[in-house]
Amino acid sequence: MAVPRRVTEPGSATIAMIADEVGVSVTTVSKVLNGRVDVAPETRARVEESLERHRYRRRASRQPTTPRQIDLVFHELDAAWAIEIIKGVEAVATSAKVDIVLSQLDGAHSPSPQWLDSLLSRRPLGLLLVLCHLAQTQQRQLQRRRIPFVVIDTDSATSASVPTVGSNNWNGGLLAARHLLELGHRRIAVISGPQDVLCSRARVAGFRSAHDEVGVAVDPELVRYGNFAAYSGNDHGLELLRRPDRPTAVFAGSDIQAMGVLRAARQLGLDVPRDLSVVGYDNLPVATWIGPALTTVNQPLREMAGTATRMLLELARGEEPATSRIDLVTELVVRESTAAAPGAR
Amino acid sequence: MAVPRRVTEPGSATIAMIADEVGVSVTTVSKVLNGRVDVAPETRARVEESLERHRYRRRASRQPTTPRQIDLVFHELDAAWAIEIIKGVEAVATSAKVDIVLSQLDGAHSPSPQWLDSLLSRRPLGLLLVLCHLAQTQQRQLQRRRIPFVVIDTDSATSASVPTVGSNNWNGGLLAARHLLELGHRRIAVISGPQDVLCSRARVAGFRSAHDEVGVAVDPELVRYGNFAAYSGNDHGLELLRRPDRPTAVFAGSDIQAMGVLRAARQLGLDVPRDLSVVGYDNLPVATWIGPALTTVNQPLREMAGTATRMLLELARGEEPATSRIDLVTELVVRESTAAAPGAR
Repeated sequence: MAVPRRVTEPGSATIAMIADEVGVSVTTVSKVLNGRVDVAPETRARVEESLERHRYRRRASRQPTTPRQIDLVFHELDAAWAIEIIKGVEAVATSAKVDIVLSQLDGAHSPSPQWLDSLLSRRPLGLLLVLCHLAQTQQRQLQRRRIPFVVIDTDSATSASVPTVGSNNWNGGLLAARHLLELGHRRIAVISGPQDVLCSRARVAGFRSAHDEVGVAVDPELVRYGNFAAYSGNDHGLELLRRPDRPTAVFAGSDIQAMGVLRAARQLGLDVPRDLSVVGYDNLPVATWIGPALTTVNQPLREMAGTATRMLLELARGEEPATSRIDLVTELVVRESTAAAPGAR
Repeated sequence: MAVPRRVTEPGSATIAMIADEVGVSVTTVSKVLNGRVDVAPETRARVEESLERHRYRRRASRQPTTPRQIDLVFHELDAAWAIEIIKGVEAVATSAKVDIVLSQLDGAHSPSPQWLDSLLSRRPLGLLLVLCHLAQTQQRQLQRRRIPFVVIDTDSATSASVPTVGSNNWNGGLLAARHLLELGHRRIAVISGPQDVLCSRARVAGFRSAHDEVGVAVDPELVRYGNFAAYSGNDHGLELLRRPDRPTAVFAGSDIQAMGVLRAARQLGLDVPRDLSVVGYDNLPVATWIGPALTTVNQPLREMAGTATRMLLELARGEEPATSRIDLVTELVVRESTAAAPGAR
């Protein structure tokens, strides 16, 4: 069987060798590596192909004049927790004297080639991704240029090979449901995020496991997937609470979504926690001030962001982090929005 | 009377002239201009002094290789409205293919020399400041390097010579108080931000003007200065509402502070809006979902940030904006947290 011919050992090719093979100047190869757009697309494709085939890796250390910047990119900034992530990154970056370049992808879950070109031309120390992912070819483009990246994972959708800092979503779902079951609730609804986002499914799985532990069946009618916004909690909340067999407790997908559920309860004249218990997710600072103060699952967003930033800076220094996949612990924070089930008092 | 001798017309000095006068190389002057730290402090001071005396202004257009970045600096990121500002800047910057470098000053209202040096060495297209200001010497340092700056003014504390985009705080206070007075309230409390922040005073002044219009006296006991955080609203709210002559309405300094007031009402068993009307400030997205949905003053944070970014990019292109001091309009948004005064029904 023919083995594809590889001219060099992985990582041993030089820019001159690549230039020679493709039949272009060293400057042209260098331009492609630095994301410059003044190279004909066809030439560029040939250079990238050759870089890929030789598994080219940049070896030279960074020029000292390059600004010390890391890129922080969000899938979108609409989520209320974005500021918590920014603060976590900022604290670590500032003390390392590194600047943060902030961007968002207008809801796309993967950056465009143009966006990545612009990034490559700036040569940041590294890249932090929140709720978005790089295609395989994009990952290799960064690897060739020795620009490390780390995913701040609130949705657990990344492969094991990608450095990631997340939190234990399954445990979060388990703790929330256990708390409500211990309070005597037997009809508990869950409104999670989108079903195609893994963290939603992980939390619902934890929620089910807590039910299994005590032998309580989960009514499939009470398992809802929405999104993390307040209106989603309100829509699902109204629908659930208008049922003749309405739940006595709701586990929401975010604190903001829980605010929509609380509003649904008020709209229907139900008192929280007397008639309905509500548990949120995230433990944003605002959770304390919602009326009633929200029982919620603490997702340590700042710590996740800080840990990811430290990991990125280690990788940028050429160090190998002790572990490249970290899940921080989620915890239940009990406040005023949960109480014993109406029948259990 | 001796007039201080000026060797050149303002702005006509060259780097070579400065170098010649100070007795250093052109490279050294260039290093100082670019914020490089490898110049002896004493030399640097002499160069800066000469640049200042000649009112040196960089003339050369920017090098095309300089990254297209603007700096966005916050006094602190703790405020809940920071994300609204970021989104407003982001929308304009992205469509202009400009990156945002984000930083915060840990609560300081003016950047440190180190921070400014780091900025100068990066040579951004310009600088946006939120709730923070540049000292006169810092302003001149930027002007010499043709790095424009614009203040996103939520506190109206800047001088007329500095390009600023703000909103009409006085009008906001007027509208809130008029609304409550029209509902028959006669004992209205105001909890504002810190007294040394001009926007707090402007809002309170507007609040007073509305009282003057209808000949209602403001009880000085009901005028409070706190900060924009929820706990501040809660502390002042509890104190005000425990008074035997408690107010029937509270105008808060922010939506988040209003959440603290709403909590105080709940703690004391007062129903909003039956026993107490509450008006917020900012109109953050969360205001709709607070229980009850918050009547508030819309401060157009995103539009302010977007307008400031457009103004900055104009200045960076060497254009002169039509006007360098813009105040956007504030508006009252009536929701569920205000109703006719108890006596007036």
